[in-house]
Amino acid sequence: MQTATESFLDQQIVLDHGTGARLSRELVAFMVGVLGDVYIGEMEDSAMLPVPAGNIAMTTDSFVVDPPFFGNGDIGKIAVCGTVNDLAVVGAEPRYLTLAMILETGFPIRRLHQALVSLRETAIEAGVKIVAGDTKVVGPGEADGIFLNTTGIGVFHRPPKRMTDVRPGDKIVLSGPIGNHTVHLLSVREGLGFEKHVLSDCAPLNGLIDSVNEAVAEDAVRSMRDVTRGGLSAVLHEYSAALGHAVRIEEEALPIDFETRMASDMLGINPINAANEGCLALFVEPDAVEAVLKALRTHPYGRKATVIGEITDRPEKAVEMVGKDGRVSEIEELQGAELPRLC
Amino acid sequence: MQTATESFLDQQIVLDHGTGARLSRELVAFMVGVLGDVYIGEMEDSAMLPVPAGNIAMTTDSFVVDPPFFGNGDIGKIAVCGTVNDLAVVGAEPRYLTLAMILETGFPIRRLHQALVSLRETAIEAGVKIVAGDTKVVGPGEADGIFLNTTGIGVFHRPPKRMTDVRPGDKIVLSGPIGNHTVHLLSVREGLGFEKHVLSDCAPLNGLIDSVNEAVAEDAVRSMRDVTRGGLSAVLHEYSAALGHAVRIEEEALPIDFETRMASDMLGINPINAANEGCLALFVEPDAVEAVLKALRTHPYGRKATVIGEITDRPEKAVEMVGKDGRVSEIEELQGAELPRLC
Repeated sequence: MQTATESFLDQQIVLDHGTGARLSRELVAFMVGVLGDVYIGEMEDSAMLPVPAGNIAMTTDSFVVDPPFFGNGDIGKIAVCGTVNDLAVVGAEPRYLTLAMILETGFPIRRLHQALVSLRETAIEAGVKIVAGDTKVVGPGEADGIFLNTTGIGVFHRPPKRMTDVRPGDKIVLSGPIGNHTVHLLSVREGLGFEKHVLSDCAPLNGLIDSVNEAVAEDAVRSMRDVTRGGLSAVLHEYSAALGHAVRIEEEALPIDFETRMASDMLGINPINAANEGCLALFVEPDAVEAVLKALRTHPYGRKATVIGEITDRPEKAVEMVGKDGRVSEIEELQGAELPRLC
Repeated sequence: MQTATESFLDQQIVLDHGTGARLSRELVAFMVGVLGDVYIGEMEDSAMLPVPAGNIAMTTDSFVVDPPFFGNGDIGKIAVCGTVNDLAVVGAEPRYLTLAMILETGFPIRRLHQALVSLRETAIEAGVKIVAGDTKVVGPGEADGIFLNTTGIGVFHRPPKRMTDVRPGDKIVLSGPIGNHTVHLLSVREGLGFEKHVLSDCAPLNGLIDSVNEAVAEDAVRSMRDVTRGGLSAVLHEYSAALGHAVRIEEEALPIDFETRMASDMLGINPINAANEGCLALFVEPDAVEAVLKALRTHPYGRKATVIGEITDRPEKAVEMVGKDGRVSEIEELQGAELPRLC
């Protein structure tokens, strides 16, 4: 048996793996086997899934990570984390994911296996099931190895959290350091050697959010965002625009690991604009900040949680930073992050 | 205003349209504007959607159609039809779709606009809303113009329909001719000139299915499939395998348009293996066949509906065809359809 599997793993994706005939079917059977108990799809055109009455949360994300395999993770892990986190931050319990792949002819099946194993392990950690899938294959040079899409459904056990629930005076808490994912991936991509010292923060954050919800009152955390594409800057600009209030953060309070800061300086990037895959921004009612920090810090993904700023009462769309010297500067919204394909 | 829009339409996709900063936001605003009332997403990380208690249907599909724009449709239309049809065939009412795009740098925004307009019109026809989206941009040569993913949710008003509900003696009905989508796309792709005479059948089939459900008893139609990748052959093999009974069809009964047959002969393809985007296979309780045919034929997408065969009581995984001369031959499952990227 070992031999049969090994010889399959040594093969590469061909166009016929995506045409709906026998080879397609065999590839799907292989993938379903690797996913094991995490896959609960039926062999029908749609999955049929029980949900409670009320609102569900739904979100979609495609992943074009370059490189798709890196030091402490890969596109399979990111594809679960990204979608799980988008469901969790609106206050939903992530429950079901679909998984759609676009594979380039010649992609090694061993690599596909690796991504699926990592996707399975992350889905187990996050407590989500894969309920339906799709695989398309394109010719050489028509994609870059592997692209994934996960679309997720979550159910609500408490009221949804919305940006517009945030009020002036609310504190902004980050669950962990920023910039690590970007530095790690750029370092792997460019062969810079930082990747051994700075790991991606990629993680499913629903467990961390559950810890907070169990520790504090329902409306203590008004709203949450995972800080991904566009970085902290994009999140803060989004809130400032939605609320119509200026946002102020403290430069000294920003959690940036020493090696990450060094590497960022060398790479010429600003961690404020860098994509992360396991960092949560929480907008917290002031009296609840200590309790929220305590709850975050007891969880492995929140050990370095810290307050970085607040929503001001100034009615203006602006994000400003108080520097180490006390001077206030404006953080402008970037036209583009100039750093594509990190998620 | 005309000028501003026109000048935007003349632009091309750049990497910064996918990095989460200002250009990303502007592109999203443009797309949301084009989708109009069809888009009901909130500016949160997940959409929040009401559903009734019970089962929902969920399905995902990526679209890598080549060419993405063809005579009577495009990738936007197909992206709605494919997912709507997968929900409708299990007996669900298609309700919500997510839309994820992977765009290649240099893709013309005018083409993106065209795909979105067509997606919007098809969503209106099918009665579904777009509830969340995602846009990624990759470099030149890292994708082929535009790839879409739609993931859909449907709700059930009656029991789900499953393959395993089909019984020996049930008749197999096709809602319309096979092969047209494949011939149309291949003709456009290769510049053969057939595309004016043979149009793609691409259509959302939930209205057609509703017509049937209104006309006949709940269990008259035991199961349905839309005949897409792998063609009729793949569908029949799938049912034969799931049921453990041989399937028999009549060659003379197969609905194949005259021009399609000619073109297929010239192209060396067999319409039985050809992908379609608006053809339904129904597995029907024998006494209900006339009523089902009548209901199908009153709908524009079912005018050419016809019985093509039946599920035999022979306990064997096989698909056989009775030829025009009365001889029975086996239709083998293809290894691959050799015709990639038709959906």
